[in-house]
Amino acid sequence: MARDIPKATPRQNQTGPIGPETGAGIPAPVSGIIVGKVHRYPVRVYFEDTDFSGVVYHANYLRYMERARSDLLRVLGIEQRAAFEAGQGVYVVADLAIRYVAPARLDDDLLVETICRAVGGATVAMGQRILRGHDLLTDATVRAAFLAPSGRPRRQPRDWLDRFQALIAA
Amino acid sequence: MARDIPKATPRQNQTGPIGPETGAGIPAPVSGIIVGKVHRYPVRVYFEDTDFSGVVYHANYLRYMERARSDLLRVLGIEQRAAFEAGQGVYVVADLAIRYVAPARLDDDLLVETICRAVGGATVAMGQRILRGHDLLTDATVRAAFLAPSGRPRRQPRDWLDRFQALIAA
Amino acid sequence: MARDIPKATPRQNQTGPIGPETGAGIPAPVSGIIVGKVHRYPVRVYFEDTDFSGVVYHANYLRYMERARSDLLRVLGIEQRAAFEAGQGVYVVADLAIRYVAPARLDDDLLVETICRAVGGATVAMGQRILRGHDLLTDATVRAAFLAPSGRPRRQPRDWLDRFQALIAA
Amino acid sequence: MARDIPKATPRQNQTGPIGPETGAGIPAPVSGIIVGKVHRYPVRVYFEDTDFSGVVYHANYLRYMERARSDLLRVLGIEQRAAFEAGQGVYVVADLAIRYVAPARLDDDLLVETICRAVGGATVAMGQRILRGHDLLTDATVRAAFLAPSGRPRRQPRDWLDRFQALIAA
Repeated sequence: MARDIPKATPRQNQTGPIGPETGAGIPAPVSGIIVGKVHRYPVRVYFEDTDFSGVVYHANYLRYMERARSDLLRVLGIEQRAAFEAGQGVYVVADLAIRYVAPARLDDDLLVETICRAVGGATVAMGQRILRGHDLLTDATVRAAFLAPSGRPRRQPRDWLDRFQALIAA
Repeated sequence: MARDIPKATPRQNQTGPIGPETGAGIPAPVSGIIVGKVHRYPVRVYFEDTDFSGVVYHANYLRYMERARSDLLRVLGIEQRAAFEAGQGVYVVADLAIRYVAPARLDDDLLVETICRAVGGATVAMGQRILRGHDLLTDATVRAAFLAPSGRPRRQPRDWLDRFQALIAA
Repeated sequence: MARDIPKATPRQNQTGPIGPETGAGIPAPVSGIIVGKVHRYPVRVYFEDTDFSGVVYHANYLRYMERARSDLLRVLGIEQRAAFEAGQGVYVVADLAIRYVAPARLDDDLLVETICRAVGGATVAMGQRILRGHDLLTDATVRAAFLAPSGRPRRQPRDWLDRFQALIAA
Repeated sequence: MARDIPKATPRQNQTGPIGPETGAGIPAPVSGIIVGKVHRYPVRVYFEDTDFSGVVYHANYLRYMERARSDLLRVLGIEQRAAFEAGQGVYVVADLAIRYVAPARLDDDLLVETICRAVGGATVAMGQRILRGHDLLTDATVRAAFLAPSGRPRRQPRDWLDRFQALIAA
C-alpha cells in the first residue's frame, strides 16, 4: 500500500485541504485546554464506544475520563511515560465513584471537564464530569495515587504537586 | 460535583486558556482532513490502548482505522447514525488484512491515512496506514460492505457512491 | 481456511482431548455459580485487559463486573437480549463506586463475587468484589436500573424482582 | 462490602451450588482443549463486545482470537508472562487477515478453533476461525513473531517450537 499514498507534502492539491489543519496538511491532534481552574477535553463517540443497547457502554466513560486526565498531565508538563520508564512511578486510580445521568450516542461530541479538589503527598483528588452541550451525562469523583515501580505509594515530585495545587479553586 | 465547576463562559479568566481552542473556551473536537485524495486523521495513544508488553495492543489499531473511516464519512457528509436509525443501512467490515511494521507507544501522536481504492454497488475498498511522523507502523486494506437492517448487502445510496468515487486517485 | 480444519466430530483422535470438555470435544463455556446467596464468576486476564504499566487497566474491572452481572441474570433465567429485542427494556448502570485495592496481572485467574443488597421497583443494588485466591483486588457497589426503550425507568417484571429478592441475605 | 460477603467455605449452603463447579464452590475458569490437531476455545458474548449496530464490533473478534492463542500457549505449557518478565521475549502479531462471514450477537456461545500451519525460527503461522454451532462467523490467518525485549525478532525456544511443530497436521 505504501506506493499508493503520496508522501505528505505541503499543499499538494490546488484547492487546499477540506477541514481544519495545523499547516502542511497535517490535522491537529486532539488537545484539551485549561480555562480558569477547569481542564476541558473533547471526545467524539465512535462505534467502538457504543454497545448493543445503542448508547455508550458504561465502562467507556472511564476511558474518556482517563484520556482527559492524561491530557491534563500533558498540558501541565508532566510526562507520564518518561516518569514510568525512568522508574520514577506512575499514577493509578485508587478509587472512583460515577453517576450516570444521561447516555451518550454515536457521533456525539462530548466535553470532559476536570477539576482538582485536593492534593496529598501521594494522591490527587479530582472531580470529572462529561457534558454534551449543556447536558450533564456523567458526574464522577476520582482519586489517583502515585505508585513506585514496587506498587507502593510514593510521594509525587514536588513541582508536580505544586502544579496540581495551583489548579485548586480558592 | 455540578456545583464545583463554574458554568462555561467566554474568557472567564484574565490570562486566557492554555492550549488551542475554538473560541468561548471550548477545545476543538478531533477532526480529519482530506488533502488531495488522502484522508488524514490524528490519533493520540492513551493508557487504554497499550498492553502489558508496553506497546499498543494489536486489535486497537483496528479501532484507530475505524475512527478514521467514520471521520471520513463525516467529512464526506455521510451520516452513519441517521442512516442506521432511518433503517437505511450500516457499513460493516467485510474483510481486512493488516501488517504490523513497528509498534506505537503511550503518548505517541499518530496519523491514520485512508485512501479509496475501488467502489462497488454495495462495497468500498480502502487502503489505510498508520504513521508516526515519517515511520510506517501499520499497513492495511479494508473492504466495507453496506448492509440493510436485515443484514443483507444493499446498494449504497448513489450520491454516497459518487463521493467515494471522487476520492479514487486517477 | 475452512478446508484446513476438520469438521468437529466426537472423538476424532484416539488419545482424547487435552483439557476439560463437555463431551464431543467441545470445551465448556464459562459460567458462574450461585453458592448460598453469592454469585461467583471466574475471569482470566488476557493481554487485552492489561496496560502499559503491566497490570489490568482500571476500567476493565468494570467489564469483569458486567460479565458477572450478565451471568447472574443468565443463571437466574433472565434473558437480557430477548427482553431488549421484545421492547421490554434493558438494565443499565445508574451509578457505581469502586475501590482498587491491589492490581491483577496477565494470566491471573480471578473470581468476581456478586451479592444483591436491595431491590426496588426499577432498580437493583449489588455489591461486587474481585478476588485472586484470598486476596481482595477491588471492592464495588453498583446500582442498576431497568429502562424502557424510551430511556425512562420502568418497573422490572415481577418475577425477576422476586428472583433478585430471593438472593438478598436475611 | 467485605463484611457482607461470607468467606468462601466448602458447601456453606445445604442445597449445593447452582451451576457447574470445580469443587469447594469455585466455578471452573475458562479453558480451551486440544482435540486432534485443533485447539478449541469457548467465548461468550457480553455487552462490552457489541456495538451500536447490535452485533459484535469487528475488532473484538481479534480479542477473541488472541485469548484463544494465549490459551493455546497455556495448554502447551508456554508461560508468556514469565518469559516476558525474564526478558526472554514476547509473541506479537506480525500480520493477520480476517474475513467476516456472519455476525455474532449478545449472549452467543462461540468457539474459536486454532490450528498451526507452519513454524519458523521466530514465527508461527496459524489459522483461526470462529464458529457458532455449525455456522462459520469469521475466518482468519495470523502470523505471530517472537520478539526480544529490544523489539527485534528472536529465535523462539527450541522446545516451544517443537510443541507448535507437533500440532501441525501431517
